[in-house]
Amino acid sequence: MASDPRATRAAAEISRINAFFPIMTILGNRLAASRPFEGKTIALSGHLTTLTGALIRELALGGGDWVVCSANDATTDHGVVQMLRDNNITVYTLGNRNDAYRQALKHKPNLIADVGADIMTTLATEQPELSEHVQGAVEVTRSGISKLRALDTLPFGVVNINDGKLKPAIENRHGVGEGLWHAVQALTGMHLSGRRVGVIGYGPVGTGVAAYARAAGASCEVVEPDAIRRLVAHYDGYPTPSLEECLQRVGVAVTSTGVTGAISVDQLSKARNGLVLVNAGHGNNEIDVKAIRAAATAVDQVSDHVVRYTLESGPTVVVMAAGNPLNIVTNSGSPEPVLLHFALLGLTLEWLASRTLSPGEIAAPHELEDMAAELALTALGMAHG
Amino acid sequence: MASDPRATRAAAEISRINAFFPIMTILGNRLAASRPFEGKTIALSGHLTTLTGALIRELALGGGDWVVCSANDATTDHGVVQMLRDNNITVYTLGNRNDAYRQALKHKPNLIADVGADIMTTLATEQPELSEHVQGAVEVTRSGISKLRALDTLPFGVVNINDGKLKPAIENRHGVGEGLWHAVQALTGMHLSGRRVGVIGYGPVGTGVAAYARAAGASCEVVEPDAIRRLVAHYDGYPTPSLEECLQRVGVAVTSTGVTGAISVDQLSKARNGLVLVNAGHGNNEIDVKAIRAAATAVDQVSDHVVRYTLESGPTVVVMAAGNPLNIVTNSGSPEPVLLHFALLGLTLEWLASRTLSPGEIAAPHELEDMAAELALTALGMAHG
Amino acid sequence: MASDPRATRAAAEISRINAFFPIMTILGNRLAASRPFEGKTIALSGHLTTLTGALIRELALGGGDWVVCSANDATTDHGVVQMLRDNNITVYTLGNRNDAYRQALKHKPNLIADVGADIMTTLATEQPELSEHVQGAVEVTRSGISKLRALDTLPFGVVNINDGKLKPAIENRHGVGEGLWHAVQALTGMHLSGRRVGVIGYGPVGTGVAAYARAAGASCEVVEPDAIRRLVAHYDGYPTPSLEECLQRVGVAVTSTGVTGAISVDQLSKARNGLVLVNAGHGNNEIDVKAIRAAATAVDQVSDHVVRYTLESGPTVVVMAAGNPLNIVTNSGSPEPVLLHFALLGLTLEWLASRTLSPGEIAAPHELEDMAAELALTALGMAHG
Amino acid sequence: MASDPRATRAAAEISRINAFFPIMTILGNRLAASRPFEGKTIALSGHLTTLTGALIRELALGGGDWVVCSANDATTDHGVVQMLRDNNITVYTLGNRNDAYRQALKHKPNLIADVGADIMTTLATEQPELSEHVQGAVEVTRSGISKLRALDTLPFGVVNINDGKLKPAIENRHGVGEGLWHAVQALTGMHLSGRRVGVIGYGPVGTGVAAYARAAGASCEVVEPDAIRRLVAHYDGYPTPSLEECLQRVGVAVTSTGVTGAISVDQLSKARNGLVLVNAGHGNNEIDVKAIRAAATAVDQVSDHVVRYTLESGPTVVVMAAGNPLNIVTNSGSPEPVLLHFALLGLTLEWLASRTLSPGEIAAPHELEDMAAELALTALGMAHG
Repeated sequence: MASDPRATRAAAEISRINAFFPIMTILGNRLAASRPFEGKTIALSGHLTTLTGALIRELALGGGDWVVCSANDATTDHGVVQMLRDNNITVYTLGNRNDAYRQALKHKPNLIADVGADIMTTLATEQPELSEHVQGAVEVTRSGISKLRALDTLPFGVVNINDGKLKPAIENRHGVGEGLWHAVQALTGMHLSGRRVGVIGYGPVGTGVAAYARAAGASCEVVEPDAIRRLVAHYDGYPTPSLEECLQRVGVAVTSTGVTGAISVDQLSKARNGLVLVNAGHGNNEIDVKAIRAAATAVDQVSDHVVRYTLESGPTVVVMAAGNPLNIVTNSGSPEPVLLHFALLGLTLEWLASRTLSPGEIAAPHELEDMAAELALTALGMAHG
Repeated sequence: MASDPRATRAAAEISRINAFFPIMTILGNRLAASRPFEGKTIALSGHLTTLTGALIRELALGGGDWVVCSANDATTDHGVVQMLRDNNITVYTLGNRNDAYRQALKHKPNLIADVGADIMTTLATEQPELSEHVQGAVEVTRSGISKLRALDTLPFGVVNINDGKLKPAIENRHGVGEGLWHAVQALTGMHLSGRRVGVIGYGPVGTGVAAYARAAGASCEVVEPDAIRRLVAHYDGYPTPSLEECLQRVGVAVTSTGVTGAISVDQLSKARNGLVLVNAGHGNNEIDVKAIRAAATAVDQVSDHVVRYTLESGPTVVVMAAGNPLNIVTNSGSPEPVLLHFALLGLTLEWLASRTLSPGEIAAPHELEDMAAELALTALGMAHG
Repeated sequence: MASDPRATRAAAEISRINAFFPIMTILGNRLAASRPFEGKTIALSGHLTTLTGALIRELALGGGDWVVCSANDATTDHGVVQMLRDNNITVYTLGNRNDAYRQALKHKPNLIADVGADIMTTLATEQPELSEHVQGAVEVTRSGISKLRALDTLPFGVVNINDGKLKPAIENRHGVGEGLWHAVQALTGMHLSGRRVGVIGYGPVGTGVAAYARAAGASCEVVEPDAIRRLVAHYDGYPTPSLEECLQRVGVAVTSTGVTGAISVDQLSKARNGLVLVNAGHGNNEIDVKAIRAAATAVDQVSDHVVRYTLESGPTVVVMAAGNPLNIVTNSGSPEPVLLHFALLGLTLEWLASRTLSPGEIAAPHELEDMAAELALTALGMAHG
Repeated sequence: MASDPRATRAAAEISRINAFFPIMTILGNRLAASRPFEGKTIALSGHLTTLTGALIRELALGGGDWVVCSANDATTDHGVVQMLRDNNITVYTLGNRNDAYRQALKHKPNLIADVGADIMTTLATEQPELSEHVQGAVEVTRSGISKLRALDTLPFGVVNINDGKLKPAIENRHGVGEGLWHAVQALTGMHLSGRRVGVIGYGPVGTGVAAYARAAGASCEVVEPDAIRRLVAHYDGYPTPSLEECLQRVGVAVTSTGVTGAISVDQLSKARNGLVLVNAGHGNNEIDVKAIRAAATAVDQVSDHVVRYTLESGPTVVVMAAGNPLNIVTNSGSPEPVLLHFALLGLTLEWLASRTLSPGEIAAPHELEDMAAELALTALGMAHG
């Protein structure tokens, strides 16, 4: 059977990704040897990008019946879908998303891997009786963990791999930091050297955004209300002015606060003219884009993801990606940090396959983070480490 | 007349470039006010990219008859061509390149701007009698200057803007350094942090390539036979091993030597397996790709611009962009350094319009470099500086 | 009464320290206003350096009877002792140290501040009945906390200020990192740029030692057996070879492992000739200096703190400060991180003065770390922040 | 004869300096083998520090009669003087300096090495007839070269080793940059991380001062009136405000302009309170300390080299080292850059010994800079490179 050319293209992209950081290949070889999923049914929800495609293709080498749901139509690469189907994996993408999760549950999964807890909450709220089949589940994201904690009861065991050692130190810091500034450079054409930038919020993400700004040659300031974090930012090398002073001075401001309305339209009235606003945090409401739009006397779509607003209070400001996390929207930067997290996901599923968890949330066992780190070091060493 | 959609797209891209670094707009406003080219005919050869389009559109605001030749079919953006024609500028792209230059000369230009000295050498060798019309010319590139110096006689005056203060300190160092590593990251997916890289040749380009590698988190070594440059590299922060030792250790090696055969296939026999070879220098022969190809027992086209060779002597090596300068081939990095150089080109033409040079080559007058720097500072300040 | 000139000199040094980072002055003003220690007796053991003198002089402005013991004859500055006595503070320095602690206990302290838990363990083991007077105590160091945890019973409450957020992020990382390399430069005359250095152990101290090495221009590698820390070191920008490979290549190796025998004499047999060995960790046994001495065929005291050994196995190695923590031995680097920790100590005593803790160890309350950070930010802002 | 203990101490310090960067030892071995100075008389003026002592002791291994003058009483180390005399070298230090130069000339030198051109100008203006004995001379400093150029006639040949490739790239950039900030840290106790600093003047010295400030964690701005240098500073990573704006914001300002009155007392009226003023340039008049003193309503000697002035216009400012170049006054930082320059001096004398120059100034031959760089690389490699 001649394959769909989109599937061929997706497979080629995955080959390219594996060429320089073959962590997925190493994971696949391991699973192919031990076949941990033999006889199991696994339901997985994810953004069906090439990276996720690379993961699932290797996971399936470990045996078992794989049932995949697209977590978001907007992020679904149909070449990946076709490639997975060519590998005899069931993929649900049509219809509304809840239908997809319900379809997946009809397979009575023994293991669940979720990005946003969609399969899990559907199971827990609509068909809790299916829990008897579930040995354990794994959740990848902060928002998924929040949804699970908001449930009345969690009738099966879930491993939280969002809150370990690896994610803040590598994905949050190095993944976001690198990708975000590459995206700003590519979309605006700005060379960052010598430009003043402000980072609003100095948690694990802000730490990386500031470090990569400085590395790119920018003069970086940090706004942080918490005294301890602010003092750490100071000793890490950043002046720590108030938000108001910062916005008067900088050319680019990046939010990484986890807080709604970190930058309000009122605070922009004295901002430096031409200020570029970027969100690197969670969700799309750290910058109050809705209020900016309402207060604008003129709007200019400079290019994709780049809109300039003339505020009635004076300055023009540029909003990138409508306030959504820019590095995610543009998928910029190295895939290595994401693939590392995917390796942890795969190892967690392998670990779950040989046990049954008690109901409730548990942290990722240290041994799994340790093993994911080992796989990454091997992948780096095989190629170029 | 409805415009060609390709011309509309080119104009939109130019708007985007001007949005964050409006040096071309500032130049155009200046020329529109003084109209220095009124009554003159100007012949210009260039790579007809959006950046060059942005330049010519603004130059034409200074009056005069503009005749433009495409310097290379492969780099010609036909949207830019159409946009220029919509602005009543004569553009020659068809036929072989020599025909285009001869066509341009039929207009008896008073001023010439060349990238590679093609119009100038055609004039000097085929129609030297046209020199009486030429007040002066400007050449932008090292290779153009070399061709002019190889002529028996240069029958008109030429301003060399390749060898001033601005180009080594900004375009060579910051332009190439930034663009090169963005391209490596984008094409291979590698995160550069913690990887060992080697820079072969520590002139103005190598200095920037090494500095941006280090800034990106790489562990950088420099190979440089000249003792003075080698000691400077040491104090700039880089171990300075021999080429052989370096290639055994690093994951990526970048040439910036200006020398043919800086890396031979013999020197690769003990290289680290998987070594990625990139050229950031001049021409496409710093890495001996021809010999690598001949010595390969297997060839794998990993993706566009990325080819892996298995050498009979042992290691695999990856050659990027077939040994051509990677940042140019992929057009990566900020356009600011190029636009700065284009502003210097425009100011030089303006300066030439009010005088007639004696035959021979002269350096760019300090006042023109100074003025170009002022325009750039204004452009940075207007937007975000 | 004419003051002792040594006391005058100590007071002058303290003035100089306060001139550019007046956190002690701010603390003193606060305590002078509220007089929290009125009616209390406070016993404090410390290294009686000028920094400690600066602390105690300000603490005494808060009222109370202060009884001070010298924690170590070798670190006692007798100008500081005299200055404290001029301020009506009781200071015990003579005799063996245990006598000093016993003398202090005769004052029946209500509050205890200890560096190394000496007063506390003397009380707990020799005179536990005095615990009824003790509202609470504060311990500053890792070794003190370890001693307290080894006691059978801890008959009063102790605040552990060694294990909070501030110490790893500021003192461990920025204090040690800066001071250590300043000391290496000063004692050896080496410019660090371009030299290869190795950091053994990538915890909070090693993280800082590596970051400051890189900032000083060195080419830094990290040796770390733990896979997670090793991967973090990689993404933080360091190659991560084995100890053996590292020692063959680097010119300086720094231990920060917390482990005895991190570098053994056997591992040095293939080391690079002239390798300089420095300890930045805890205690004086991370480098096995005793075995190095035993294996040496020649010993050369290059200068204070710098001894070169010719090993019978081949290379010469240089041991700094006999394997003791170099930054502490030479007291190099900015006093700011230490003063920040002292401010936390002072605020903890103030907090203890108004309550009585239950027996046992507690972590430093977040509000106290937060307040110490606020004082530091004020101190930085008043002067130069 | 029992040696003077001061001479023993000087010899020990020189041993320590040679232990980690033995460039002087390598030079001495070379000269001891070839004896280029046999039968020659060499007059040398210098600051008789341990570094200069290390140089002269090795030079004398090349044979010849050496006559040494102290260039400055304030910088003369009498242990070095005694050590040189113990090595049968004539040293003039007593009386006024002109006498010393005249004494040296009585020896009818064949070769002259000068720091500040004192021997040379004494010869040229008072005893030009001695020129017939002079094969050639070498001058080390900018001020010496300026004095020589101001002479009516220069009756012998002089090699200018101040204006080559090595000095701006290594001593000016890396030597001053490192030493200056170490001195600021040591004298003020300030940790530089996160503090705003300004660098006034972006030549080779300013470039290094800014780079080392940034490396130390400071947030650095550059003030530079020249547009080309200002744009280079921008792309090198520094905001480039006006002097007035800069002084309002920064905590430390460093001059490196080569211009008298780069910071006037009027420009300080709106300065940030507590601003620390440091000179890294030439002479002691870049900061107008005289006017600051005159305008001060209060003066506070904080410590050696640190004086705080309360200006009648408002702010307090701190002047370091009375406006003299701080790194020189405190002799801070690595001696390597100075020793490299001394090696070039020695190689130039060796080169001069086998020829007679025509009268006039010549640049240092490339081969000598190349050889000095080779010696430095060997010195780095022998020990730790």
